[in-house]
Amino acid sequence: MHKNPSSKMNVAVVGGSGYSGLELQRLLNKHPHVASVTAFNSQTTANMKVSDYQVVFLATPAEVSMELVPAILKEGSKVIDLSGAFRLSQGDVLENYKTWYAMDHKAQNFLLEAHYGLVPWNNAKKEVSLIANPGCYATAVLMGLLPLLSLGLIDEKSIVIDAKSGATGAGKKASESMLFCEVEGECLPYKIGEHQHLPEIQQYAQSLGGQEIDPFFATSLLNTRRGIIAGIYANLNPQKNAQDVANAFKEFYAHYPLVEVAEEITREMVSLKAVVGTAKTRIAYKIVGTKIYLYSSIDNLLKGAASQAVENFNLMNQFPITTVLDHLETMV
Amino acid sequence: MHKNPSSKMNVAVVGGSGYSGLELQRLLNKHPHVASVTAFNSQTTANMKVSDYQVVFLATPAEVSMELVPAILKEGSKVIDLSGAFRLSQGDVLENYKTWYAMDHKAQNFLLEAHYGLVPWNNAKKEVSLIANPGCYATAVLMGLLPLLSLGLIDEKSIVIDAKSGATGAGKKASESMLFCEVEGECLPYKIGEHQHLPEIQQYAQSLGGQEIDPFFATSLLNTRRGIIAGIYANLNPQKNAQDVANAFKEFYAHYPLVEVAEEITREMVSLKAVVGTAKTRIAYKIVGTKIYLYSSIDNLLKGAASQAVENFNLMNQFPITTVLDHLETMV
Amino acid sequence: MHKNPSSKMNVAVVGGSGYSGLELQRLLNKHPHVASVTAFNSQTTANMKVSDYQVVFLATPAEVSMELVPAILKEGSKVIDLSGAFRLSQGDVLENYKTWYAMDHKAQNFLLEAHYGLVPWNNAKKEVSLIANPGCYATAVLMGLLPLLSLGLIDEKSIVIDAKSGATGAGKKASESMLFCEVEGECLPYKIGEHQHLPEIQQYAQSLGGQEIDPFFATSLLNTRRGIIAGIYANLNPQKNAQDVANAFKEFYAHYPLVEVAEEITREMVSLKAVVGTAKTRIAYKIVGTKIYLYSSIDNLLKGAASQAVENFNLMNQFPITTVLDHLETMV
Amino acid sequence: MHKNPSSKMNVAVVGGSGYSGLELQRLLNKHPHVASVTAFNSQTTANMKVSDYQVVFLATPAEVSMELVPAILKEGSKVIDLSGAFRLSQGDVLENYKTWYAMDHKAQNFLLEAHYGLVPWNNAKKEVSLIANPGCYATAVLMGLLPLLSLGLIDEKSIVIDAKSGATGAGKKASESMLFCEVEGECLPYKIGEHQHLPEIQQYAQSLGGQEIDPFFATSLLNTRRGIIAGIYANLNPQKNAQDVANAFKEFYAHYPLVEVAEEITREMVSLKAVVGTAKTRIAYKIVGTKIYLYSSIDNLLKGAASQAVENFNLMNQFPITTVLDHLETMV
Repeated sequence: MHKNPSSKMNVAVVGGSGYSGLELQRLLNKHPHVASVTAFNSQTTANMKVSDYQVVFLATPAEVSMELVPAILKEGSKVIDLSGAFRLSQGDVLENYKTWYAMDHKAQNFLLEAHYGLVPWNNAKKEVSLIANPGCYATAVLMGLLPLLSLGLIDEKSIVIDAKSGATGAGKKASESMLFCEVEGECLPYKIGEHQHLPEIQQYAQSLGGQEIDPFFATSLLNTRRGIIAGIYANLNPQKNAQDVANAFKEFYAHYPLVEVAEEITREMVSLKAVVGTAKTRIAYKIVGTKIYLYSSIDNLLKGAASQAVENFNLMNQFPITTVLDHLETMV
Repeated sequence: MHKNPSSKMNVAVVGGSGYSGLELQRLLNKHPHVASVTAFNSQTTANMKVSDYQVVFLATPAEVSMELVPAILKEGSKVIDLSGAFRLSQGDVLENYKTWYAMDHKAQNFLLEAHYGLVPWNNAKKEVSLIANPGCYATAVLMGLLPLLSLGLIDEKSIVIDAKSGATGAGKKASESMLFCEVEGECLPYKIGEHQHLPEIQQYAQSLGGQEIDPFFATSLLNTRRGIIAGIYANLNPQKNAQDVANAFKEFYAHYPLVEVAEEITREMVSLKAVVGTAKTRIAYKIVGTKIYLYSSIDNLLKGAASQAVENFNLMNQFPITTVLDHLETMV
Repeated sequence: MHKNPSSKMNVAVVGGSGYSGLELQRLLNKHPHVASVTAFNSQTTANMKVSDYQVVFLATPAEVSMELVPAILKEGSKVIDLSGAFRLSQGDVLENYKTWYAMDHKAQNFLLEAHYGLVPWNNAKKEVSLIANPGCYATAVLMGLLPLLSLGLIDEKSIVIDAKSGATGAGKKASESMLFCEVEGECLPYKIGEHQHLPEIQQYAQSLGGQEIDPFFATSLLNTRRGIIAGIYANLNPQKNAQDVANAFKEFYAHYPLVEVAEEITREMVSLKAVVGTAKTRIAYKIVGTKIYLYSSIDNLLKGAASQAVENFNLMNQFPITTVLDHLETMV
Repeated sequence: MHKNPSSKMNVAVVGGSGYSGLELQRLLNKHPHVASVTAFNSQTTANMKVSDYQVVFLATPAEVSMELVPAILKEGSKVIDLSGAFRLSQGDVLENYKTWYAMDHKAQNFLLEAHYGLVPWNNAKKEVSLIANPGCYATAVLMGLLPLLSLGLIDEKSIVIDAKSGATGAGKKASESMLFCEVEGECLPYKIGEHQHLPEIQQYAQSLGGQEIDPFFATSLLNTRRGIIAGIYANLNPQKNAQDVANAFKEFYAHYPLVEVAEEITREMVSLKAVVGTAKTRIAYKIVGTKIYLYSSIDNLLKGAASQAVENFNLMNQFPITTVLDHLETMV
């Protein structure tokens, strides 16, 4: 089979049996510009004829993505990679990957070529061929933090992030620590100060928000399936106030339909159930004196993975950004 | 070290890192007649000097118990086996183990020697050296069913059992199907009509209750950690009534302190939280016309495993049956 | 405002803030033939100008439905009532409502007029003006039971039903017994043998399945939000076998797209997560000797309430039965 | 009845049907120096003959405690109050109670008399007659924070607290917002920056730790029954290091058996299940550069309420501090 001559595209999803991969297929199968979605897993990628697919989505571990990306790009197909393999490109990247991902980077030539697809902060152009889809925690955090950093509203030395994630974030691989009986009843801090999304947040706080930051970054595992809620705490800079904050969010998100911002913290605005199943980011904040308490919530498998990958697919192909995503909705 | 000359005993727990093994150690460590509890796992049993322990508790898979029991008995120590390895002794036992446990029995000579330790229905005497501690579902079911069967109160052809268990029943081994995200939100029927506790229930319904039965037996996995609730449904025999049922439970459990029976189904009496953490069995029933609806609840890790093993240990050593068990209590 | 002259309809939902009412609005808001959805609650129905709405959905308690139905029908609008108010029409209905619903029926004249909307067993015709939308448990049970009863495949005296429901079934009203801390960790039998869906199941087993039955009917509350799984246990009649059962389901559901039937019990086919969020019924069964173990699963808020109401709305208006329902899907 | 002449005491628990009250009775019923425990609720306190009880425990709302305390003290009995009624005694207390508890204080004369019973930081002497038992969040936070503040190890301007609590913290009162279906699947921030335990933390940081602080204080509701885990984030002061921190915890907790401190964050040390059911505080921390990430975990109903009340009872009566508490243990 050759590339589809019509406007509809053939795409592949590698790692299609994981939680993100399943959600990705669910979205792509309904996409009006997608003709077919073919799923592969690590055992079957050898059978994938890359040139059949205009775009290959990788919902694979970072080490698998590193191996597959060079081969796929060489065949002329585009890649949207949901792993962390191509997100860190500043500083000593080899050292970075060893430190944060505990592995040697096998495809470092492609790091600078990769486009970090944080939508709407870094929208991909048509000519982009490799997209590093942002990490789930990094997405939730940056969506809340970048407006504040970009306009210098907060003391960048005061930032503390305490983010909690549903257990699908850990993937579907059998492990004793993720058994039902080990997770139920818990709210478990893990990888404290050493989560691989910390350098990702730092790199893009700088490149997209213009600020070097070195925040506290604490991550906890919730006994729920889906959803991330990131608490972001910081001090406002002198002379900055609630109006500046409100304006910042209005300015940056005026034309982005997949975000909702509230100037107060209501239950509805910080409910995980209210973002789970949707492609949205919800941000709610409260200012007490000079302190800002901000919560940014997403579905870790959608805006934190699959739906943001589709946003990138849409941008890359100049489809409206919310194509197939605007019908998503939450359930009671 | 030789056997403890004092009244305090040295015991071993093999399989001490599993859920039942941990609970067992917790109880034995507080037992007033236990001097020491030594835990072994499958990697370390080679180091176990059997003769050091008056009693060895096996909280191991059936195949491991089959291997260990002959060696331990040979050394003169007693065994309380929490696995299913020595519970089925009627009929073609080799065939039975192949059918229900999917394995060849490697120690069939010991099957008839094993004492099935369902307390208070089959209390072990001092001279017993091998106790087959009953299965969790079988315990919950038989505790509710035997009084009815023993006095011929119900139509033995009409029995339907729908039993639900917390996820600790599946053990602590890593598996994809027991991941938090796979169990949460579910109530999953499994091994329908083919659970290995069915022949166990049948054998002891006959030998302890005097009735051959061939019940429906459905088992489901709950998204909770601990507790079994077995729904038992049957038709009363002609001329049998509520008073007969009440009398049956009074008669059989008059001298057994670890059971509570209610002649109505109240929330308190069918709450899993109200048995979890205790050594008790709770039975509540309701008769509508000729139908009896009966619920029998236990903590699957205690009466369904560790605390019944301690009851057997107490009986075997002529300690009061509730030693170390009567202080157990539930939490709000 | 007068009735919409175009093909699009204006509808009202009374009781729109409850769980079923919210789901119903979510579906109707996307319905291609619905122009507007107006929500009312018990405080605001006085403001409802009934004649503005071609159809009024009542997601109200039975006592409220009894009061509203006569007034709405008098105004010429049609009603789809999700409560139990108009489901029992056989025998001494006044007595029935007192026994099962603990209330006097205030609109008994409408009981015979009401059409019991179990789809696809009793599809509404265009001229129907009052639909009694079936109860959640009754739907799950009848969908599994009717094919067996209709063809005389099972011994009608042997039927035992053990059905479990997520907690949304109890509604959104504040109560101590439904607090998170009271439900979590439980699988709570309630209304044993006296649930109001029992006479509903009996009436329609007879009128739609041609059999008088008097089954065991046990209901339990699960510590999960959504989904019902009904275990149905019965003996096959002599000479009836697996093939007969398979044929029965094929025959009755050949043209109904919203059901899936499996001749074996796989995890996927009995997973609540796999029906939650969809309008589907999933049926899986296994025959062991002469025993049939059957599981019927639905989303209690959808096929058990809102989506079946939409099926009835579609039938009543001669829209394709799956309109707005076929896009519903489950999430990992 | 007059006061018990023997060494055993008669005590009363008011508010005995709430979660804390039930746990408190469970502990007191086993207390070797307690002769009898009599429970009252708000409807039955009129029947309480105060002089019959050497100590009255109040597990009541603050407004009820304010009413009962003067009367009880007048009768010569001692009070251990688990509410917040007598915890804030600095500054404009009337204003404080209006701001944080939304009520007028009706017994302000007793505020200075009340002893804040944070054990082991402020152990009650024999002559104390009114103990304000600390709040659950305040206890978890102060146990982790006071060693650091007392020795000036952290920058008091940098403190951020993100604390999460199980749902029993909200009590047993019926409310829509605490229904199972509203809490399940969530991790809900609430009372952000305005929780009444914030001024409590501030007052005792100063009086017991010698530092004025104005921390970020965020509280979230977990979808679990029991347990609090407080994340405490701060910058170390210049020249302070890991050794200083380790020494601080060793110094302050050397003689207190109900705390465990780890110099690394392991899963075991931050597991809620590992503190639930016990009277212990668990503290684990990690230092990354100059940042300290510290987690302090307790059972909100025990160390956060009932068991700390028993510690105070023990101190007040010069019993060993862990009387009846050292046998508490966790379950798998």
